[in-house]
Amino acid sequence: MEYNKLSDEIIAKLQALVGVQNVVTDAGQMEIYSHDEVTDPAYHHMPEAVVFAENAQQVAAVVKLANEYIFPVVPRGAGTGLACGAVPIYGGVVLSLEKMNKIIEVNADAMYAVVEPGVRTSDLQAAAEAKGAFYAGDPCSGDSCFIGGNVATNAGGNRAVKYGTTRHQVYAVEVVSPTGKIVQLGARLQKQTTGYCLEQLIIGSEGTLGIITQITVKLLPLPKYSMDLLAVFESPEDAIGTVNKLIMAGIMPTCVEYMDNITIKSVERYLGTTLQGSDKGNYLIVEVEGTSEDDLDEKACTMDEICSENGAGDVLVAEHDKIWQARKAFAEAVRAESLIVCKEDVVCPVDHEPALLAEILRLADKYQLVTRIASHAGDGNIHLNILKQEQENYADWDARVKANQQELYRFIYAHGGRLSGEHGIGYKRKQLMEEFTNPDELEMMRAIKKALDSNNILNPGKIFDIE
Amino acid sequence: MEYNKLSDEIIAKLQALVGVQNVVTDAGQMEIYSHDEVTDPAYHHMPEAVVFAENAQQVAAVVKLANEYIFPVVPRGAGTGLACGAVPIYGGVVLSLEKMNKIIEVNADAMYAVVEPGVRTSDLQAAAEAKGAFYAGDPCSGDSCFIGGNVATNAGGNRAVKYGTTRHQVYAVEVVSPTGKIVQLGARLQKQTTGYCLEQLIIGSEGTLGIITQITVKLLPLPKYSMDLLAVFESPEDAIGTVNKLIMAGIMPTCVEYMDNITIKSVERYLGTTLQGSDKGNYLIVEVEGTSEDDLDEKACTMDEICSENGAGDVLVAEHDKIWQARKAFAEAVRAESLIVCKEDVVCPVDHEPALLAEILRLADKYQLVTRIASHAGDGNIHLNILKQEQENYADWDARVKANQQELYRFIYAHGGRLSGEHGIGYKRKQLMEEFTNPDELEMMRAIKKALDSNNILNPGKIFDIE
Repeated sequence: MEYNKLSDEIIAKLQALVGVQNVVTDAGQMEIYSHDEVTDPAYHHMPEAVVFAENAQQVAAVVKLANEYIFPVVPRGAGTGLACGAVPIYGGVVLSLEKMNKIIEVNADAMYAVVEPGVRTSDLQAAAEAKGAFYAGDPCSGDSCFIGGNVATNAGGNRAVKYGTTRHQVYAVEVVSPTGKIVQLGARLQKQTTGYCLEQLIIGSEGTLGIITQITVKLLPLPKYSMDLLAVFESPEDAIGTVNKLIMAGIMPTCVEYMDNITIKSVERYLGTTLQGSDKGNYLIVEVEGTSEDDLDEKACTMDEICSENGAGDVLVAEHDKIWQARKAFAEAVRAESLIVCKEDVVCPVDHEPALLAEILRLADKYQLVTRIASHAGDGNIHLNILKQEQENYADWDARVKANQQELYRFIYAHGGRLSGEHGIGYKRKQLMEEFTNPDELEMMRAIKKALDSNNILNPGKIFDIE
Repeated sequence: MEYNKLSDEIIAKLQALVGVQNVVTDAGQMEIYSHDEVTDPAYHHMPEAVVFAENAQQVAAVVKLANEYIFPVVPRGAGTGLACGAVPIYGGVVLSLEKMNKIIEVNADAMYAVVEPGVRTSDLQAAAEAKGAFYAGDPCSGDSCFIGGNVATNAGGNRAVKYGTTRHQVYAVEVVSPTGKIVQLGARLQKQTTGYCLEQLIIGSEGTLGIITQITVKLLPLPKYSMDLLAVFESPEDAIGTVNKLIMAGIMPTCVEYMDNITIKSVERYLGTTLQGSDKGNYLIVEVEGTSEDDLDEKACTMDEICSENGAGDVLVAEHDKIWQARKAFAEAVRAESLIVCKEDVVCPVDHEPALLAEILRLADKYQLVTRIASHAGDGNIHLNILKQEQENYADWDARVKANQQELYRFIYAHGGRLSGEHGIGYKRKQLMEEFTNPDELEMMRAIKKALDSNNILNPGKIFDIE
C-alpha cells in the first residue's frame, strides 16, 4: 500500500477543517494513540497526526481530504481494544471520536436511545436506567469503552447469552463512508426488508467500511427481578459440561460465566478479598431474570438442581456486586500478574465447549503454559490468558504460545468455532484470520472492501490484507 | 442488460449438469414459474428454462455456466412471494430449489437444525417440535412457503415481536456465490467477530448475492405455557394505540396482531364461521408465553388491565387454533373478495403506528379505496390491502392506488418507516425503492452487487437496477 505522508499542506488543511486545537502532531501527546490495550510494543505504531472530530461533517471532510491526498484514516474510540484495531500501522491520521460523546436522546416510551460514538458504554446504561429503561449491551470493559467501539467490534460481554451481542442492540447507524459521505443505515424498526442489511455489515467491520458517527440502540424494559447463583465445581469439565444443560432448560439465563480456580485466586489477590467458595473449585456464575419473585424462585430451583446433578459441590446465592466485581476484575488481575500476556478469545458451539476446555488444558500442559481462564461460557467464548513468567525467556515463551495457537485454532475450526468471539481481528490476529478463514469467504470480504473503499483509506491493514 | 438467449447448446449443457429430467422448457409446464402470488399478469414473465437442482454442486455448476454464457439465473423457492422476487424478468433460467427439501439434522441437545432451502417452513417447525424443540420463525404462509425463501426475504410473521424475523433465527448459510463458488457463511455460534458478517448481508438480499443451498437455524426450548388474549376495541386508533403500551409493560408478548372489523367480517365470510366479539369492533390478538401458569396468569392480568384502560370493550381468552386460523386466513379471504388487490406492507416505529393507521384511513377515504387491514402491530408492520371492486374501472382504480401510495410512502419515510416490513422489494416495488431510498445507501448496495456479481447473473433487475 502506498500512502502519502502528511505534508505541511495536508496538516494545514486538516486544521482548517476541524480547528487548530483538534489537530495534534506532538509525539508526546500522540503516544497514547499509538496503541490500544495490547502492551507488546511490537504492535504499537505512531500516527502522523491525531485529529479530534466534533461532528459527522468534520469526519466526512477529513475522509474526503484523505481520498484527495491518499493517506490512511484510522478511527479510534476509547482505545480499549485488544486486537490493535485502532493502531495506525501505515501512519496517517488517527481520527479520535472522543469529543463526539453526546447522548442525544433517551426515549423510554419508544424504547430507544440515540448516541454519539464517544459515549462511554456505562454512561449509556446509566442514562437508560435513569429513565426506567435498559440497555442490554454489557462488555466487561463497559466502564471505559465507548459505544462506537462496541459497534465497530460487535462487542459481546456478559449478557449476550440472553440479549445477544452489540449487533443485536443496534437499530441504525450513521456512518461516514470510505469516500466521505454521511449515510444513514438501518432504521428504528423491528423489521424491514428493503434491500441489503448494510447496518449489520458495518457492525463488526472494525472501522474498515465506515466511521460510525451516530448510533440508535434498542432499549428494553428494565428486568423486574434478577438473581445471581454461584455454583462451585471441583472439576472444570463438570462446570463447563453443565452450561448447555442450563441453556436447554428454558430458563433463559442472562449470563453464564466460568472462572477457573487459579483465576479466582488471582482475582482474590488483586482485589485483596475473599470470594465465596473460592477454596472449593471452579465457578459458574449464572444470572437469571424473572417476571416475579415466584418465577425467579422457580428458576433458581431448576438451576440448583441442574448444577447439583452435574457435579457442583456448592450452589450459593451470590452477592451481585461482589461477584461481578470479581468477574470484571479478571483482565486487571491478569495484568497485575504479568504485563506480557497472550489473550485468546476463542469461541465454539456451546455443546463443544467441554471438549474445547479439555483441549485447552491438555495444550497448556503440553506447552507448559501458565494460564488464567475466564469465559463467557453461555456463549462458548473462552478467554484464555497465557502469562509470561519473569523467569521465562521471551523467544522461547513466544514460540510455545504460537505452537499452542496453531494446535488450538485447528481444533477450534474443526469444531465449528472461530478465533475471536468478541475482541475482533484488528491487526493483531490478521495473519491467523487469513490462515484459518475459508479463502472464498475472505475473497468476498475483500471484494466488498475494495468496492466501497477503492483507495483503501479506512483503517487499512486490519482484519485482512487487500492484496 | 444484455443476456444471451438459452441456445440448444446451453440447454444441452444444462441437461448434462443436472440430468434431462431436471430441465424443463415446455411452456405449459413453465407457466407456474412465470409468477409468484402476485396475480396481476403485468408482473409475470416466462423463463426460457426451469432447472431443478438436487444439490449445491448442481447449483454451482449452473451458475458457472451462466457466467460462461451470460444468462440470468433466478432462484425460486415455493413461489409464495408477494414482490415478484422469483420472476425471471430477463428470461434465462429459473432455478427451482424444490427438490432440495431435506431436513438434514435436528439437534435438540445443541439446539439447531440444518435444512435444505426447499423445506416447507411448517415442516421445519414440526420436525423441531417432534424433538421437543422450537423453531421460532412463523410467517403466515408457513404451510406453503420454503425456509430458503424465508431467508432470502428475511420473512417476518407473527412471532417476530418476541423472536425477531428470519434474520434472527439463522446461524449460518451455505450459498452458491454469483460466480459459482460454494461458500459457508456464518457459524453455529452465539457470537463471533471474525470479519464481515456476510450471512446477514445474504439474508434478505432476495437471491441477488447468492443462492442459498443450506441453512443452519437456531432452535429454542419449547415455550412451556402460552395463551392468546383477544381484546376488542371499538376504535381502531385505541387498538393500535395500546400496542406500544403492551410492549413497554415488559411482558414480552410473542405476537401482537391487529385486524380491523371489516377484515374480521371478510374472514368470517371466507371461513363460514363466527368469530368471538366480531360484532364489537377491531381485534388485538396478543399471544404471550410464560414459565409457569402463575407467570402466565400474571401477564394475562397485566394485559387485561392495559387493554381495558385503553379502550377495549372486551378482553377475552381466545381459542388458539380458531383465532390463528382466522388471522392466517386473511390473505385468502381478501383474494376471495377480489383478485385484483394492491398489497402494501409498510412498516414504521411502533410508537408512530397510531399516526400511520390514522393516515391510512384518511387516505383511503380521500382516494375512495376499499381496504382490508391486518397488521403485525407489535412490529409496526401494517398490511394494507386495497381491493379493486368489480364496478371500478381498472385505470382509474390504479391511478388512485398510485396516488395513495405516493402520499402514504412520503408519510412513512417522514416517520422513519420503510415501504416493506417483510414481503421484500423484488421486481414489484423496485421503482418505489429507488424513489424513496437514500441515494447514497442505494449506491452502497449497488457497489456490493457489482463487486460480487460483475456479470449481473443472479436475479437481475430485483431490489434495484444496477445502472
